[in-house]
Amino acid sequence: MTSETRRLTRKGQETRRRIVAAAAQLMYERGLTEATLEDVRAAAGVSGSQVYHYFDDKQALLLAVIEYQTEAVLDLQQPLFDKLDTMAGLRQWRDSLVEYQRRLQCRGGCPIGSLGSEVAENNPEARLAVASGFLRWEAAIRQGLQAMHARGELRGDPEDLALATLAALQGGLLLTQLQRRVKPLEVALDASLDHIESLTERDRPHAGTASAT
Amino acid sequence: MTSETRRLTRKGQETRRRIVAAAAQLMYERGLTEATLEDVRAAAGVSGSQVYHYFDDKQALLLAVIEYQTEAVLDLQQPLFDKLDTMAGLRQWRDSLVEYQRRLQCRGGCPIGSLGSEVAENNPEARLAVASGFLRWEAAIRQGLQAMHARGELRGDPEDLALATLAALQGGLLLTQLQRRVKPLEVALDASLDHIESLTERDRPHAGTASAT
Repeated sequence: MTSETRRLTRKGQETRRRIVAAAAQLMYERGLTEATLEDVRAAAGVSGSQVYHYFDDKQALLLAVIEYQTEAVLDLQQPLFDKLDTMAGLRQWRDSLVEYQRRLQCRGGCPIGSLGSEVAENNPEARLAVASGFLRWEAAIRQGLQAMHARGELRGDPEDLALATLAALQGGLLLTQLQRRVKPLEVALDASLDHIESLTERDRPHAGTASAT
Repeated sequence: MTSETRRLTRKGQETRRRIVAAAAQLMYERGLTEATLEDVRAAAGVSGSQVYHYFDDKQALLLAVIEYQTEAVLDLQQPLFDKLDTMAGLRQWRDSLVEYQRRLQCRGGCPIGSLGSEVAENNPEARLAVASGFLRWEAAIRQGLQAMHARGELRGDPEDLALATLAALQGGLLLTQLQRRVKPLEVALDASLDHIESLTERDRPHAGTASAT
């Protein structure tokens, strides 16, 4: 929540949120450039002056959408983030991500990854906002791996492993979105977690579980 | 090359290619929807009737751009694809992908991944074209891993490992593009290849190399 939204009344915050939610949905359905402020206004069921009361321009609205989608993505995983310091917790997180995509019929990909891809080369401010959202996501994964590392249960660099896991997740989501099947996300996360698990094992000669034959 | 392009004269093929290259560049710089046929015509230095001679509409041009970018991405890696059946070859491929992003100053991400993200939810035909390009990329990786597997040098499922490696690569490219540094691509590919390497080792107790401390 920015200082600006804190100054709003409760009703004002609700209106603002309705506008952002409508914009997020339209940008997702049509792409950033096709979603006009007039479309957003109509979809949110507010007046044009209300939209401009909360957002100076489309850029301000886009930045609010990036924050909104980041919160949505992180909120969804929040209950599992605390468990990412064990292999069982990591596998549970993997399962929930796969299950969520299955429920969506593999549509949509990653809401912030998609926005990031669209803004990366033509909107530096929005690119940094998306990158910042990803840093929060990466930090949540890293926290779990760092705890495992601190307990002496994980070899390897928890920072690198967290970043690699987020990358695998993003690539898995993109391929799952394109192929409309959960398999790419499954194998991407399995490979990542199998790799992490292999770094938790001290004495077993053969690392890897799910993909080892 | 489609049956349509085979019917063109050599000069016709060159003109068509110039239009597609101009369109690819504009779609990359501005995003799909912002790149109009008029922009493409001007950038390619051809007449409007020439554009319409080769492409019925923007959709036909988009599909040609997807094929063009797929060829470009695969051509670039082609010299290394034959070497993906050894760990040394896989590491060399990783280094060349990282070096290429460094030369681009981490701009652009993956040309086909970016297109895929833009079309995935509003253009099924283009989505399938991108998915098909990714299948070719995946097949090139899989071929190397299958050879290792056939020689008894790799445990695990080469198909899953190839798909997971492509996912790690895509996610690494997206995060590298957003952060403007090669680190995400490096750690994503290192984790993937360390995992593959751990499945090649028969007797060593601790798998993993680069990320093991």
